[in-house]
Amino acid sequence: MTDYDIAGLKGRLGGIKVEDNPALVQQKSRDFYWYSPTLKRQLDHVVGDLIVSPTSEAEVIRTLQAAFELGIPVTPRGTGTGNYGQAMPLSGGVVLDLSGLNKVTAILPGRFVAEAGTVIAEIDKLARAQGQEVRLHPSTYATASIGGFVAGGSGGIGSIAWGGLRDFGNIIRLKVVTMEANPRVLELAGEDLHKVAHAYGTNGVITEVEMPLGPAYGWVDLIFGFDGFQAAAAFANDLGEQDGIAKKNLSVIAAPAAHSYFLRHQDYLARDKHVVIAMIADFAVDATLAFARRAGAELMFRSDDVVPEDGRKLPPGFELTWNHTTLRALRIDPAITYLQVLYPFPNQVALAAKLSEQFGDEVIGHLEFVRFDGKVTCFGLPMVRFTTEERLEEIIRIHEEMGAPIFNPHRYTLEEGGMKQTDEVQLAFKREADPKGLLNPGKMIAWEDPSYDYTSGKTFLFKSLSEKGPDGQ
Amino acid sequence: MTDYDIAGLKGRLGGIKVEDNPALVQQKSRDFYWYSPTLKRQLDHVVGDLIVSPTSEAEVIRTLQAAFELGIPVTPRGTGTGNYGQAMPLSGGVVLDLSGLNKVTAILPGRFVAEAGTVIAEIDKLARAQGQEVRLHPSTYATASIGGFVAGGSGGIGSIAWGGLRDFGNIIRLKVVTMEANPRVLELAGEDLHKVAHAYGTNGVITEVEMPLGPAYGWVDLIFGFDGFQAAAAFANDLGEQDGIAKKNLSVIAAPAAHSYFLRHQDYLARDKHVVIAMIADFAVDATLAFARRAGAELMFRSDDVVPEDGRKLPPGFELTWNHTTLRALRIDPAITYLQVLYPFPNQVALAAKLSEQFGDEVIGHLEFVRFDGKVTCFGLPMVRFTTEERLEEIIRIHEEMGAPIFNPHRYTLEEGGMKQTDEVQLAFKREADPKGLLNPGKMIAWEDPSYDYTSGKTFLFKSLSEKGPDGQ
Repeated sequence: MTDYDIAGLKGRLGGIKVEDNPALVQQKSRDFYWYSPTLKRQLDHVVGDLIVSPTSEAEVIRTLQAAFELGIPVTPRGTGTGNYGQAMPLSGGVVLDLSGLNKVTAILPGRFVAEAGTVIAEIDKLARAQGQEVRLHPSTYATASIGGFVAGGSGGIGSIAWGGLRDFGNIIRLKVVTMEANPRVLELAGEDLHKVAHAYGTNGVITEVEMPLGPAYGWVDLIFGFDGFQAAAAFANDLGEQDGIAKKNLSVIAAPAAHSYFLRHQDYLARDKHVVIAMIADFAVDATLAFARRAGAELMFRSDDVVPEDGRKLPPGFELTWNHTTLRALRIDPAITYLQVLYPFPNQVALAAKLSEQFGDEVIGHLEFVRFDGKVTCFGLPMVRFTTEERLEEIIRIHEEMGAPIFNPHRYTLEEGGMKQTDEVQLAFKREADPKGLLNPGKMIAWEDPSYDYTSGKTFLFKSLSEKGPDGQ
Repeated sequence: MTDYDIAGLKGRLGGIKVEDNPALVQQKSRDFYWYSPTLKRQLDHVVGDLIVSPTSEAEVIRTLQAAFELGIPVTPRGTGTGNYGQAMPLSGGVVLDLSGLNKVTAILPGRFVAEAGTVIAEIDKLARAQGQEVRLHPSTYATASIGGFVAGGSGGIGSIAWGGLRDFGNIIRLKVVTMEANPRVLELAGEDLHKVAHAYGTNGVITEVEMPLGPAYGWVDLIFGFDGFQAAAAFANDLGEQDGIAKKNLSVIAAPAAHSYFLRHQDYLARDKHVVIAMIADFAVDATLAFARRAGAELMFRSDDVVPEDGRKLPPGFELTWNHTTLRALRIDPAITYLQVLYPFPNQVALAAKLSEQFGDEVIGHLEFVRFDGKVTCFGLPMVRFTTEERLEEIIRIHEEMGAPIFNPHRYTLEEGGMKQTDEVQLAFKREADPKGLLNPGKMIAWEDPSYDYTSGKTFLFKSLSEKGPDGQ
């Protein structure tokens, strides 16, 4: 790991902020990979050699140029809120901390332009001042960077209205710097966006993002209680299909998890109730309550009805959902981990219920409703009581056998976490934009090992990682 | 028709604008009923006795109170842009012209409040100045009143994003004046909205409307050409399912109708092309074109690429769609009429294509894509080359036999145009709000003839209309 000419690199980066204090380097070499016991075992020792923190595109270009010349790997990073080691430097080298690229360049009707490291909440604050807001964000809204979300995320809060980042229209334009002797600055739009979106920064460094904005509303959190998990899921699905009700998020958490893990909301929740958490525009609350009464749903909580002194103690509803659900569970029960499941339309409710029954208390139901290819369906982020990696693999296999594809959050490669096949577009772009393969090494199997067999059932083990790792057996 | 004490009524309405000039009364007794040869035959002679044009809720109350006392029917009306005789006074009496209630009371984040007679374009102008716009409107945006749309419409432009007026959330609140000795002013919200929305003003006079607003974007008209009708429909369906592309309208017109009837767009269109007309947010045009290229669609027209001097001659794209399609066809071929068809999800594309083939040139395909119960599907407003009423009925029957329900636009009653059964909620509210049955008589079968058999296949003939009509045989 220390074979790189880090001193030579530092010499070339005069004027750019760098950091080699080991504790700080270790901190910035990590993300939320420890959600996964598998990734924790595999990646716990991963650390870069140097943090470089540019504050402008020109500094990014200088950094990439120098690292290219010296053959030093560069792993770009936003604020490190990913869950799969996306931003962890498997081959050491430079961790390119982009959080200093944090200027919002423009808020326009229907869209914004911001530097990649800008925290989403900061963009949203400026957009909301103009009656608009960021369409999609992860539950780490308050800390995640927009570039990191584009490079390593897929959707989240807002996906019930707008689908996911992979969908045409949810990203307008990206500015990307290549890793070459003379780095180029490319503007990608339309079809070309697929080259670098959700590529973990393996084939270009995103420096600027242009994305659409939705209308800003006063959002109200509503929590409904149900006696059965399937009833809760069916209600959420039906509410998701209410086209006239403006909504931003729609989640289902099985009993007793909501009561057990959402400590600050605990007084409002009952242990035996499966809950639906909905984020609804203030002007649509009446309509939602009318719809809920018709469906026989019991209202347990509405954030617009809480006295301010109590309300100030509560996190926003979306911080009970997506991977914040997992986080809250982990804080109370460190043995919890999770999966990422797609329950395909049109059987999503029955399938989610069936899988929830299948595993009983070992896999605790957690659904996030989204628009997917034009239909309302749900992803699952079920909480798993972890025992062994073998059992985790077995649970995954049973899901897939029962018709629920898994986006495996216990893998650090693009392919194993995603579509389990080579993304030819991303690979071709890496050949062009990162000819030496220095950007975020080890994350794109197609680059590292073109002969890898996705049907083998074997976990890909990145060579560099296995060589240096404590358990690179 | 002249049995009513119109002189007595006028005496009681001092200070309120009234009109009894026969030419003007006839004009204000009509709507676009003549789209239908059947309704033209049945309703051509229909005329009120007096137009009353209040300019405030207080004047509405005084008018209803006086008419109630004298037993004179009152048919409320916006600007008369309906197509089914909704606002035509079948029993004569008062035509209550609400176009003088035209104040926009408030534009708030996500919603507006306006008097019922306000023209939708006027509301939109004020909303757009604040970055918002009316979610749903008919193609008669420039002339239709918001109250008339709520009372007699169902959806239209915007329904691809927000569903229809029947959906929870698309109307927030209605203020309604009852027809009693002492008219009450009721505020209806949530479940109660169903009492008076789409009731043709048969059970209350809507005086104020509160509805949600969507985000205002710069909308671009894109027209794509296809060799086959089914290919056009399939592309529109897929584009409708692109969750990330902000769109406001999405229509398909079979060849050669677009070329033949859209005279001001004719230079851009080819006679042999079936077209998809899409209204897309300016910032989503790139994404839409990338999607279209992938689908092999040919771009024929984009409104943002037309030189201003040509652009000024063109109507907005949405004035080529919904019932403006029919209107443009009628102007060129007066023998054209139309139907209203639902092609249910998930077989909408194949079914629409099959029906289009079934009738050849007699029924010219015209689809409007919408969200319906959470899914993208399409309504049809096919143009029919009219020969006889019998053949029209036969065409309707074939549609229904093939699985495509018809919302019959050749009927003036709520039930026959809609669900072909009694709406118990609307009927119960009429008993309460219009005990004498004086509001818009003849439009609610359940009130006029509770024993009417919807399965009889017979057209309902309103007694009062049959007594006075020229062909009340």
